[in-house]
Parts: sequence; structure tokens; C-alpha cells
Amino acid sequence: MPTVPPGNPAVDTADVSALLERGRTMSTPVLRAAVDRLAAPMDTVAAYHFGWIDAGGNPADGDGGKAVRPALALLSAEAAGAAPEVGIPGAVAVELVHNFSLLHDDLMDGDEQRRHRDTVWKVHGPAQAILVGDALFALANEILLELGTVEAGRATRRLTTASRKLIDGQAQDISYEHRERVTVEECLEMEGNKTGALLACAVSIGAVLGGADDRTADKLEEYGYHLGLAFQAVDDLLGIWGDPEATGKQTWSDLRQRKKSLPVVAALAAGGQASERLGELLAEDAKSNDFDTFSEEEFAFRAALIEEAGGREWTSQEARRQHAVAIAALHEVDMPAHVREQLTALADFVVVRKR
Amino acid sequence: MPTVPPGNPAVDTADVSALLERGRTMSTPVLRAAVDRLAAPMDTVAAYHFGWIDAGGNPADGDGGKAVRPALALLSAEAAGAAPEVGIPGAVAVELVHNFSLLHDDLMDGDEQRRHRDTVWKVHGPAQAILVGDALFALANEILLELGTVEAGRATRRLTTASRKLIDGQAQDISYEHRERVTVEECLEMEGNKTGALLACAVSIGAVLGGADDRTADKLEEYGYHLGLAFQAVDDLLGIWGDPEATGKQTWSDLRQRKKSLPVVAALAAGGQASERLGELLAEDAKSNDFDTFSEEEFAFRAALIEEAGGREWTSQEARRQHAVAIAALHEVDMPAHVREQLTALADFVVVRKR
Repeated sequence: MPTVPPGNPAVDTADVSALLERGRTMSTPVLRAAVDRLAAPMDTVAAYHFGWIDAGGNPADGDGGKAVRPALALLSAEAAGAAPEVGIPGAVAVELVHNFSLLHDDLMDGDEQRRHRDTVWKVHGPAQAILVGDALFALANEILLELGTVEAGRATRRLTTASRKLIDGQAQDISYEHRERVTVEECLEMEGNKTGALLACAVSIGAVLGGADDRTADKLEEYGYHLGLAFQAVDDLLGIWGDPEATGKQTWSDLRQRKKSLPVVAALAAGGQASERLGELLAEDAKSNDFDTFSEEEFAFRAALIEEAGGREWTSQEARRQHAVAIAALHEVDMPAHVREQLTALADFVVVRKR
Repeated sequence: MPTVPPGNPAVDTADVSALLERGRTMSTPVLRAAVDRLAAPMDTVAAYHFGWIDAGGNPADGDGGKAVRPALALLSAEAAGAAPEVGIPGAVAVELVHNFSLLHDDLMDGDEQRRHRDTVWKVHGPAQAILVGDALFALANEILLELGTVEAGRATRRLTTASRKLIDGQAQDISYEHRERVTVEECLEMEGNKTGALLACAVSIGAVLGGADDRTADKLEEYGYHLGLAFQAVDDLLGIWGDPEATGKQTWSDLRQRKKSLPVVAALAAGGQASERLGELLAEDAKSNDFDTFSEEEFAFRAALIEEAGGREWTSQEARRQHAVAIAALHEVDMPAHVREQLTALADFVVVRKR
């Protein structure tokens, strides 16, 4: 079964790469200058986290992630008829909040690897992970508020709302770990908070800085929120069936982490023989002492049950549904035609990506 | 040697108690309503931290601290000629930031007790301490920015600046733990960041919300910053020579924690026989495996050396110097006479308090 939603318009991937590259190129120098404001040793720890230096302090050219958010923030400014540059402080602020949450979440979740490297708490200790996360969060607001405009105040308010949802989502994620069953609705709500809210903010923040009214910003957020849910649905598919070469994660990564991701909760909710067998198996796994030594075949068997119960197909359809809602919201906002095309191309990219 | 700076004007403590009580009474309901916005279980964890419920979830009437900051925020509004109510969102935002930092600092420092109760990370685990701290920090900005005024944007910017300094101060505090020697200047800078910056913000935030210009706000911050340094100098004295009955801490509390507080660094910097003996002793202590089993007499001996080297007297004088600078700043701002009197009384209270 393809991850690519069938019937989707062809994506000009070269164009999307250019958009992502533009976002990265225009925002990174400002992001680095912002991080340089941090007092030692927080500046160094942050530079390690962003992949600009290695654990020994030597310059590195690390994988800074896909940089979807900065690209969106610049397009957001253009959607409001402003120059892309107007969105840069928004792009930087959103990246700072995103990375604040990564630093803290990795520590809370005990994750030792991120972007193929040891996480900050693993290299520099838990205190630095907490401290630098806090500093990036504060810096995000600082970058916006020092613009000193009414628009910056409105942008900061939207960023604060998104940050609160991000934190709510992490709280839900943690509490779900201790529960045997999570409903599809709960999973979608958690993913909307963890992924949708900040992508939504990325798509509104440039427009707000460019003078857009609240209705326009809200519609752009609707696009971003559903784009985030589509993004996460694809992420959940890749977390089980992704190619390790492309994702940089282990095979069956989310199954190894016992993540109650969309394919799993959808499969459990589907009913029928495969669904019930999966439910029994995961309940046994939760009590098992041998889980860490499970073979490839044992994970493959669980993945096959999820697929048989319909969890893979449902999640794939969900990505298409969310994609469609996102595109519909886009058509309710007046904006230059080329900006709408580029936001559409980015949405298409999000659901066809392989990593 | 008295902690009370000699020659200080008599304090009408009844008046100061009334000011603190007013700050608490007017801000607590708004603070509680703000905390109630948090998603479960963060609302419960925060309520425990604030002392509103016990670890079992039953209503409690905990010690919420001295509440100097809310009292200052309300007076701050009055200093700008506004009603004290105008300062309430500022009082709440400052309290939220203060408590965000307590939650994270207690975890980073491994402190198991705060206000005579187990700390949040001890009761609810490290993840909840991180998460609820983050949530309170975000909530602080939310409370201000939802006012939607230009003044609220300016107030949030000042709060963000103070928050960054708070984080810088904690970073310095952590890095100083690993160093053998810290200069008096470094200690003052760290204490200015950890205590001065947020007290400064408390004294400007109400005025900014009440429409004060930047010069007035800056002068009020100068008063608050030096008030904070006076406060901390007294805290450092109480941390060694305070009455355990009054402070709720152990005897020689800061010595037991090997804190490089002002009396210690001043004594080490003083030179002379007692200073040198103290330096040798603390260097031995740093390597000692028996430190945890030291007797009362051993700590008393170190405290006596600090006093003999002049660390106690210097810190007591430093409290008076900072108090004087604070009062001088107060006289550079036009404000109603009764407000100036009350801010003066609060400054006097800070340097004569016994807990």
C-alpha cells in the first residue's frame, strides 16, 4: 500500500526543495545571532542541539531537520502581501519554540538520539537540557517583542497559545503512555496539540507581522493545523513502515517504543479478528520482560496485524482527509496566486515525503 | 552582630503586613483561575506546588511564600497613578514566572524540600516538574498578552527580559558550583540575575500596565533590582546565621549545601589569617567524604571563620548599601507620597526580616 495518497496532484519537488532552502537560508543567520545572545555555556549547548557544532565544540554541518516551519513563516508573510523578509522574526521564534520543546521532550521521554546524534541531556546533562530549553523559549518571545510593534504583540500572543497547546500535547502524550487504551479522538487531539498548533502558528505568524487581520490569520492557522495533522499521520506511517535508510530511524521504530500512534489506535478501534488479536498481543507485550529482545519477525508480525486490522489504510486516508481540509482553508483566504500554489505544493510534499 | 542594619528608619511592620496581605488577597484568585486553565494533570501538580492542595489532592492552606512580588506589582500601578487593580495581571504574571523558575531550579539542584514540603519533582516526578514549569512560563505571557493592549506588549517584553536574566542567573549558579573560587562581583551578578531582575520587573510591570513611560519604568526597576540585591544579601545572612525556627531551614543551611553565598565569597576575598584558614578548610571539605556527617560544631567553626574574616559584616553592610541605592532611585520618580512611603517601608522590611 503506497504512503502516497493516490489522486494527489503531482508535486514539483524541486520547487518545494527551493522553498525549504529559502526558509533555511533566510532564517538561519538570524536564528544563530539570537542563540549567540545566550550566556555561556548555554550558547554552546544550544549550538550543539542545532547541529552547528559537535560534542567536542568543533564546527559541524548537522542535519537541522526539514525546516518546514521557517518556509511556512516566510510564505505566511507573502500571503498577507508583505515581503518574505517580514516573516523572518516569526520563522526564528517558531523554530526556537519548536527546539525548546524538543530539548525538554527528549529529556522527559528519555530519548537518547535525535537527528542521528546524542540528545543534549545525554551529552550535557539534564540540567542543561532544562535550562537551555527555558532560554530558547524566552528568546522566542524576546525576538518578537523587541520589534516593538502592535503586530509583534499579536504574533507573540499566537505563539504563546501554540506553546501552551504544545505543552498540553506533551502532557497528554505522557499520560497516554500509562494507559492501556487510547481512543482515535484522543490520539488526534494529542497530535493536533503536539504538531498542529505550532505549524498553524508558523503559517499565521508571518501574515500577522505583515499586518493581516485576525480572520485571515485564523484561516491560515486552519490550513496549518490540518497540515500538521496530515504531517503527523504520515509520520506515524513512517514510524512503522518507513525505510530506515530514509528516516534514519530503526525498523518498526514506533512499535519498539510502544507508541500509541494513529495506525495502532485505529487498528485497535476497528474491531474484528486481527484487531482483537493485536489488542491481546499488545497487552501481553506491556507486561513482557523480553520486549527489548524481540526479533525483527515479532515486530513485523505486529505491523502485519495493524495493517490487516485496517490501521495502515485508515491512517493513510486520514492523511488525505487532513490534506483536503487544509487545502480548503487555503481557498478561503485572498492571497497572491503563486503563494497559494506554493502553500499547496508544501502540503502535497508533507503527505508524500518518505522521511 | 545584628542582621538589622543600624540607623535604619523604624519600620511600621503592621503596615508592611497589610501591604503583603493586600497583594496576596487581590492576586491569588486571579492566579488560581489562571492555573485552573492548565490541562489535567498539570493543574493538580501546579496546585500542589502553590500549596493549595496536599500530595493526596486534599485542600491545603500552604505557605505560599512572603508574596513580596504581588505587593510590589500593585504598588507599581499606584506609582503610575493607576488603581492597584491595574497591576493584578502583572502580579500574577510575575508570580507565574517566579514559580516556573522554582519548579525547574528545584529539579536541577536536586532540592527535595521547599516551604516545608516535598518539592514537585519529588512527589510527581521530574517530567511533571519540567512540564508544569513550562506551562506556568507560557501562562505568564498569556495572562498579559490577552489584555490585548500596547501596554501589555511592553509589560510582556520587560517580563521576558527578566525571565532571560533569571535563566542566566541559574546557569551561573550551576557553573559556580563546579568552581573552587567565585569572586564577589560574580556572586553579585548572579544574585542580581536570580533575584534582582524579577523583583525589578515586579516594580515596573504595574506601572507599565498603568501607562508609565519607559524612563519611569526603568527607575522603578532600578529600585527593584537593588531591593532584590538587598533581599538576597539578607537571605545569605539568614542562610548561615538565621534562626531555624523562623526560617524553617536547618542550622547553617547554606554551609551544609556548600553554597558560595555572599558572606563566604566576601570572607574568602578579604585576605588575612581567618580568610586563608577558611579557604584551606573549604578546599578540604570539597574533597571530603565525611561532609554529610559533619557535626554542628564543625559548621559553627566555619561560620565563625567567615565572621572573623569579615564576611558577615561585609554582607550586612552590602544589604544597607543596596537598600540605600534602591531608596535613591525611588526619589527620582514622581509618585503619590503614600506610595513612596509604602515602597520605602517594603524596602526596610526586606532588610530587617528574620525569615
